[in-house]
Formats: sequence, structure tokens, C-alpha cells
Amino acid sequence: MKKYAVIVAGGKGVRMGMAVPKQFLPLNGKPILYYTIKAFVDAYRDMNIVLVLPEAQMSYAQMVLQEFEGGLDVTIVAGGATRFHSVQNGLKTIEEGAVVFVHDGVRPLLSTELIQRCYEQAIQKGSAIPAINITDSIRMLDGENSKPIDRNSLRSIQTPQTFRTEVILSAFEQEYSETFTDEATVVEAYGKEVYLVEGEKNNMKLTTPEDLQIAEIVLKNR
Amino acid sequence: MKKYAVIVAGGKGVRMGMAVPKQFLPLNGKPILYYTIKAFVDAYRDMNIVLVLPEAQMSYAQMVLQEFEGGLDVTIVAGGATRFHSVQNGLKTIEEGAVVFVHDGVRPLLSTELIQRCYEQAIQKGSAIPAINITDSIRMLDGENSKPIDRNSLRSIQTPQTFRTEVILSAFEQEYSETFTDEATVVEAYGKEVYLVEGEKNNMKLTTPEDLQIAEIVLKNR
Repeated sequence: MKKYAVIVAGGKGVRMGMAVPKQFLPLNGKPILYYTIKAFVDAYRDMNIVLVLPEAQMSYAQMVLQEFEGGLDVTIVAGGATRFHSVQNGLKTIEEGAVVFVHDGVRPLLSTELIQRCYEQAIQKGSAIPAINITDSIRMLDGENSKPIDRNSLRSIQTPQTFRTEVILSAFEQEYSETFTDEATVVEAYGKEVYLVEGEKNNMKLTTPEDLQIAEIVLKNR
Repeated sequence: MKKYAVIVAGGKGVRMGMAVPKQFLPLNGKPILYYTIKAFVDAYRDMNIVLVLPEAQMSYAQMVLQEFEGGLDVTIVAGGATRFHSVQNGLKTIEEGAVVFVHDGVRPLLSTELIQRCYEQAIQKGSAIPAINITDSIRMLDGENSKPIDRNSLRSIQTPQTFRTEVILSAFEQEYSETFTDEATVVEAYGKEVYLVEGEKNNMKLTTPEDLQIAEIVLKNR
């Protein structure tokens, strides 16, 4: 089945305290976004990449693409006001009858196995939302107080949130709601179930300078 | 007020895939447990250290203590069958009229500020349970399905869970229950409220070899 990776690279790098948007910061000498794109291209040779970037960052894209020997054919789309609108813009470039991975640009460490696991489950069940166990105790706030929650019943959610086009495309034609915190919640608001799949501890969002150093270790250990 | 740090070092290092229990593995050349103990001694000069160790690991303790120039006066206590029983054994060595920090041996990266924040709140409110925000989306399992939970209402819980002795000592005279997942739940089962305090992202449990490498970066960045 046709495959699209919609890679959403928003943010302004504010938390990194740097002028360059964080998805373009170097990791062992190459931009973060290079690794993210490469993971999808490596997982399936026929992967189509749709890169959603803020208007102001379009000029950086070439810097990433030139890291691929022989170049790489990528569709670049301008982002919107929210995550929902950015993904919506990316989905407009996609044809029916495909599997779509929606992925955070700043999660460069996902493995080929995770992408393939998401693909296979999406084919079978219509969706695959990567989720990992939570290792610390969790409490829920309750006014001034708090109460323990069984962490075994909770999962921490990642991307690529993966869907068959018939599940995701019409869901993204809905009107925007503030309850849309990720793609899964958009699809659910449209009345469809979503299905979890095993994620990966290393598939973390890089948000601080220390996260970048950690990511370099993970890459070196491969 | 008198201060006791009950440092609980259980586990067998199974996940690390090593023969040495993980709390004794080296971090920049010194055992993990050295850093953990040092954090408490550095925060307050009059800190009393109670180290709870499995019987089989008593012989390693000297290796840790000799890292302190001029030695360090530490009470060493044998652990029990569960975390609850280990902490209970540690608390038996403690006098009324004090503040008690119960801390995981494999969380060596906590700061002086966190320990002082816990102390001050425990004096004022009776307890201080370090908690941090959750950055990924969270879902709750519900049979075959799952549903989103507002992560803003959740907190990830750490140690040192800190209490005035009048709050913790009698709570630990209760009979053991499987719902005792940490010290906060023991105190709550005894009918007392617990109060959260701001924790630290870096105050993580070191459980994998990669966590050790991450911890070395954190130490070097100081």
C-alpha cells in the first residue's frame, strides 16, 4: 500500500535557547530532521515524505535534504496555526488508499522496526498509536490534593501515529477543537476507535540541550 | 530539626545485565550510591544517613563509604522482602521529632535545592512528595480500548518522599498491603493527606546502561 510520512516540524527552539529552530540543530553534525526523515526512508524504500514546516523555516529545508546522497524527493508544505492545522495541510497532499504516518520532527530516534510495526497494525486495524509503559508512580491532582493512579493502566503516547487514509482523511475535515491534542484525539472525535501499538523508550521528543546530548549517546550506541 | 535520609538500595541489577547490583555501578569512576549519599550530606551538615541494603550487598557498602574523605558515619540496616519492609527496617533506627527523607539509592542526581525544598515543606505541612509535569500525551487502558487523559492533571512522582516523623513512623506500623507502592500510599492508607512539591527532571531512576551514560552527561554539565 502507498505510504506517506507527514513529518511535522513546528516550534521555535525557544526552550533550547537558540536562534536556529530545534529540528535543525545538529546531532553528530547533521540536523535532527535529517535523522527523522532517514528513519522513514530506511524503513520502506517507497515511502513518500511530506514535510510540514513553518513558512519562516522553508529556507532551512534544503540544508536537511542535501545530506541525502543523490538528493531526496520531498513534498514541503507550510504549517498552520496549530498542530491540527499543520497536519491538515500535510494531509491535503495525500491520496486515498494509503497508510499515513504522522510524526514529530523532533523525535529522530525511532527505529525501522517501530515504523514497520505501525504500518502492519494500521493495515490490519486501521490505526497504530505508539505507547510505552510508565516507570514512575503517577498521581492525579484533585483540587489542593492528589491521589495515586495505577500506572499499569496508563500509557505514555508517542508518534508516528499511523492510520489508513480512510480513517484519518475525513477526520481531519472536522472543525478544529481545543481537545485535539494529537491525531488520535481527532480520529476519536470523528467517532472512530484507535489502537495502541508498542512504542520505544528512545523515541523521545528532543526539547532541551541535554536531550540532544542524550540523543548523541543513543546514536553512538547503535 | 533532626534529619534522617533513609536510602533504599534494593534490586539486583538484572536489567543492567551485570553481576554488580546497580547502585554500586560506577558513574564517572565512583559508585552510584556515593552520589546519592553525597547529595544528602551536602544539603545539610547534620544529616544522618540510614542505608538499607539487601543482606547480600552489605560487603559492598565499605566501597562506597571509603569514597568520603575522612570517612562517613552511616547506619546500615538489612532490607526486607518488599520496599515497604525495607523502609520499615530503616525507620526503626529513627527517633521521634525529626524529618525523614526516604530516597531511592538509584536516583543519584537530585540537587541540594530539592532536598532543602522537601525539608522546608515537610516542616510546614508534614510531608513533601516530589512531583514533575508529564510531557507526553497519556492514555488510560480500558479493556481492549484506551482513552485520553488530560496530562495537565497528572504528575510523575519521585523521591525523596519526605515526612515529619509523627506522620510517617506510626503509618509504617500498619500491616503490609500490596497497595503500598511508595511511602505516600502508606501514609494515606493510615488516613493522612500527603502534599506534593516540585521535583526535578534529572532526578531519574537509573535502570539501564544507557541511563548511566545519561547520568554521566548530567554530572559533567554541572
